Amino acid sequence: MKKTTQFREMLQSKQLEFIMEAHNGLSAKIVEEAGFKGIWGSGLSISAAMGVRDNNEASWTQVLEVVEFMSDATSIPLMLDADTGYGNFNNARRLVKKLEQRNVAAMCIEDKLFPKTNSFINSEQQPLADIDEFSGKIKAVKDSQTDPDFNCVARVEAFIAGWGLGEALKRAEAYHNAGADAILMHSKINTADQILSFMKEWKDTCPVVIVPTMYYDTPTNVFEEAGVSLVIWANHLLRSSISAMQNTVKQIYDDRSLANVEKAIVPVKEIFRLQNAQELKEAEKKFLPQKNGKTEEKPAEVN
Amino acid sequence: MKKTTQFREMLQSKQLEFIMEAHNGLSAKIVEEAGFKGIWGSGLSISAAMGVRDNNEASWTQVLEVVEFMSDATSIPLMLDADTGYGNFNNARRLVKKLEQRNVAAMCIEDKLFPKTNSFINSEQQPLADIDEFSGKIKAVKDSQTDPDFNCVARVEAFIAGWGLGEALKRAEAYHNAGADAILMHSKINTADQILSFMKEWKDTCPVVIVPTMYYDTPTNVFEEAGVSLVIWANHLLRSSISAMQNTVKQIYDDRSLANVEKAIVPVKEIFRLQNAQELKEAEKKFLPQKNGKTEEKPAEVN
Amino acid sequence: MKKTTQFREMLQSKQLEFIMEAHNGLSAKIVEEAGFKGIWGSGLSISAAMGVRDNNEASWTQVLEVVEFMSDATSIPLMLDADTGYGNFNNARRLVKKLEQRNVAAMCIEDKLFPKTNSFINSEQQPLADIDEFSGKIKAVKDSQTDPDFNCVARVEAFIAGWGLGEALKRAEAYHNAGADAILMHSKINTADQILSFMKEWKDTCPVVIVPTMYYDTPTNVFEEAGVSLVIWANHLLRSSISAMQNTVKQIYDDRSLANVEKAIVPVKEIFRLQNAQELKEAEKKFLPQKNGKTEEKPAEVN
Amino acid sequence: MKKTTQFREMLQSKQLEFIMEAHNGLSAKIVEEAGFKGIWGSGLSISAAMGVRDNNEASWTQVLEVVEFMSDATSIPLMLDADTGYGNFNNARRLVKKLEQRNVAAMCIEDKLFPKTNSFINSEQQPLADIDEFSGKIKAVKDSQTDPDFNCVARVEAFIAGWGLGEALKRAEAYHNAGADAILMHSKINTADQILSFMKEWKDTCPVVIVPTMYYDTPTNVFEEAGVSLVIWANHLLRSSISAMQNTVKQIYDDRSLANVEKAIVPVKEIFRLQNAQELKEAEKKFLPQKNGKTEEKPAEVN
Repeated sequence: MKKTTQFREMLQSKQLEFIMEAHNGLSAKIVEEAGFKGIWGSGLSISAAMGVRDNNEASWTQVLEVVEFMSDATSIPLMLDADTGYGNFNNARRLVKKLEQRNVAAMCIEDKLFPKTNSFINSEQQPLADIDEFSGKIKAVKDSQTDPDFNCVARVEAFIAGWGLGEALKRAEAYHNAGADAILMHSKINTADQILSFMKEWKDTCPVVIVPTMYYDTPTNVFEEAGVSLVIWANHLLRSSISAMQNTVKQIYDDRSLANVEKAIVPVKEIFRLQNAQELKEAEKKFLPQKNGKTEEKPAEVN
Repeated sequence: MKKTTQFREMLQSKQLEFIMEAHNGLSAKIVEEAGFKGIWGSGLSISAAMGVRDNNEASWTQVLEVVEFMSDATSIPLMLDADTGYGNFNNARRLVKKLEQRNVAAMCIEDKLFPKTNSFINSEQQPLADIDEFSGKIKAVKDSQTDPDFNCVARVEAFIAGWGLGEALKRAEAYHNAGADAILMHSKINTADQILSFMKEWKDTCPVVIVPTMYYDTPTNVFEEAGVSLVIWANHLLRSSISAMQNTVKQIYDDRSLANVEKAIVPVKEIFRLQNAQELKEAEKKFLPQKNGKTEEKPAEVN
Repeated sequence: MKKTTQFREMLQSKQLEFIMEAHNGLSAKIVEEAGFKGIWGSGLSISAAMGVRDNNEASWTQVLEVVEFMSDATSIPLMLDADTGYGNFNNARRLVKKLEQRNVAAMCIEDKLFPKTNSFINSEQQPLADIDEFSGKIKAVKDSQTDPDFNCVARVEAFIAGWGLGEALKRAEAYHNAGADAILMHSKINTADQILSFMKEWKDTCPVVIVPTMYYDTPTNVFEEAGVSLVIWANHLLRSSISAMQNTVKQIYDDRSLANVEKAIVPVKEIFRLQNAQELKEAEKKFLPQKNGKTEEKPAEVN
Repeated sequence: MKKTTQFREMLQSKQLEFIMEAHNGLSAKIVEEAGFKGIWGSGLSISAAMGVRDNNEASWTQVLEVVEFMSDATSIPLMLDADTGYGNFNNARRLVKKLEQRNVAAMCIEDKLFPKTNSFINSEQQPLADIDEFSGKIKAVKDSQTDPDFNCVARVEAFIAGWGLGEALKRAEAYHNAGADAILMHSKINTADQILSFMKEWKDTCPVVIVPTMYYDTPTNVFEEAGVSLVIWANHLLRSSISAMQNTVKQIYDDRSLANVEKAIVPVKEIFRLQNAQELKEAEKKFLPQKNGKTEEKPAEVN
């Protein structure tokens, strides 16, 4: 099944589905190996991994290149956190073509202005996009895709920017009417109250996606019962890798030795396994001329 | 002090120095924050992070882009693990120009053939470069640098490929004569015996760099007493991040919840700190027109 | 019809077909507008346009990006002059995936060593690839393509390197057996003698492609009668643009004025036409919120 | 002398200076060989050469890569037409760092909104940037440069957007006060009237740059007498290359032969000269192991 179709089925399935953040080819593969059905290409994580800010400091083609590695390394669908689409409707529809070529299943665009600021920074001062302008952007995305199963998720930042349920519903409705395949309703308070109030009104209009980073201790069955379609675990692999690297680097620095670290981390051969070195070994047998069974002779030396 | 000069001084200092692997801008910054004086841009780690193999599957400009982010994110010198220089002498000297532009302090090239295979895979079947050809490559690198303090480290793969001390010394001598600023003597056995036998003969001819990945339990003072100049901790941040991500992803997948993970990993605001979000906040005050103190008015809503 | 299929049909058609060199999106579009059925993405032209040499100075992903723009700008098939495949069989098969994603119809690989030198420079000193090694590369390419109509053309450099018909035939046969969809027989003498001698022996074994840059005054019907399938006009758009730019720049420099140049070159609006600015104008009407018919009011000023 | 200093001296010299458009490494080199002292990296030409529109369809790093090739291929200073700086002040100051690394001498930013539209398309409907916002952007650029001679030219689009002299002067004054090293006053009418009216009021406040694409038949001494510092010939190499390529492709297509084209265009060896193939030949002698004077023996064959 095509990755786009896989993602579409997740959005439309009756059960609650989950996708997990990744920020490069390696973490994407780790997500797949864990059993997840999909990957969240987080804008925050990808920029942070690069060492830049989540304010469109990396160009959209630099992000695209990361996403291409992620898509190539995995067989489950990826949704790119595409910020505002990196400009206006024309930039967004250009992105669709590039994502389709790279076998990316979905893009999520948010109703903010370019260049964006992360939703958890100064959020109440961030102006939202004009509803008509953003609806036109969604239409342009849907109009540009060549694969009918490519997915455009519209992210509503109304709650994030300090607006109430009315604005959130108005925007969700407009984006749905413009053709969005799902609505991502974002919230930064530490309970699910905003989300639940939205779900109550929204009913089954179209699939809803949520990101419980701030309301992480809400039990998952609450989302299930409220009718949410998809949960994004949005940045936890990056955060766990930061914790681990900070601990490891401190230990090695203090010890001036690897001895206390070696057993606590995966061996080098686990890297090779994740890179699928084995496949290359087999391919070499198939595609390289075979020497006659013995290795190059080393000169006799007395060491 | 220029990064190139910082690195040169590390090579030439009387004391044993250490540099730590990183594979993107984020891990590079973590290395700097831990107190390390330099960064190892590991070819294995960079390729693995991308999700490809350590066989020049990523192009050299894709690697260069990663290295540019690493260099931009840090103020300590970086040495790139530049494999074979990505081709012949002409590719290698082109790389020098690109690295100098990106403020990279050093490159390490190894006497193998393009495309390379990781030194820990099938190493005994890997042919070495012709000594004259590789010496010419070193000369071309040294001839091309415009900053006299840019550093070229020549990596000898003789032990790795199954040759003995004689071949290792012959190559080290040739590369030193060709202008290498230091010799990296690589070894994959689980003791320091090969390295120590080399150091005994080599004496003070020029600085020596080692990579104790396989002989990790040799006490560091052994290297110190043997006269080694620089130790590379070559892949441990990547490996610790893999361990952490595999554990975290499993926990979240099994729990269908973040609750058990949240406290074990750094908070979102630690990402923002590493990205230096604070500086942007201050810059916005300086360079953006200031609104008159109050945020956009939200419409009155009854929620 | 898919671009790959279009190209395949050109190779297999009874009549002699032609493809024309281009080196960027603009020249590719000009080729299409002229009526040509296919585009030759020349390695020489692409590197020269960048300002570097035809010796793999640009990385393969830099070339790939140019090719992506070319493919996006046109609806006729493109064959990339992929040099040696940029390394060994593994690099070549990785390239196939990247080309397929970018809707490139064909790749031509040549039996030389990486990094390559242009066939018209010191050609007799250029060593050829080992036949088995190169055949394995072709097999790897054919094994990797997912679209059965993707085309791999094997370029034989035997004549170029100073070998005779026997070697040319031996290599063509081997590459054909390895799965090449066509043989490109290259020649740098100023008659078609080598080509014709080859065609006489080769008969209909598989389609043959030629590049008459050096034997340009051989009448085309000679190729037709000899049974050639496809002619590549390999670098003439680049060369004509160089002539034109050198003349224009001299005129403007000498005149310190545009007056004598303006009428001799296309107007600015022809650039806009080639960029398809009109489509964007229409899309803006469709996807941007429409202002109420009047432009922003300018302040009254007395100028 | 540094390229930045060269450019600064052109801006500040008493005599009228000229820079010429280029759009890739090749055309940049042709500009230098003609005797020009500087290069204009035209946004229109660079995008058109790629095959995309002048509406920020190419990402800023894709443009940057083109500019890097241009800068590497030449020894005279380059000014990049950097549109709006590709976003807000933060994007613009990030660009400065990237341009300095690539030895680009100057950037020109214009007071429009991202994504931009070419100044000659629907210009009267294009809104201008807020003066304070754009002034902050200039300040951020000047604050970010590490080389004091890096140049920021502020382009005033007031006339283009249908405003009068008053607005043009107000903006020029504000941008000058914000630290711009020169003002580019743009005009799209077919006389120099707007420019001359501006120059009369502006006097010697700071250097003025003009782009006489539309008022091309104004004699150059008129600009000289008006006190203009720098003239940009903005797109004529691209336009002449389009004319030439369209003619050449038609001829070859119609003739099904190169015979009528060969003599009208530069020979292949002129490409090699422009690529400086000769330098590589010499470098190979210096850095490659020398065979003992004779080429590989070809097998005896009877052809």
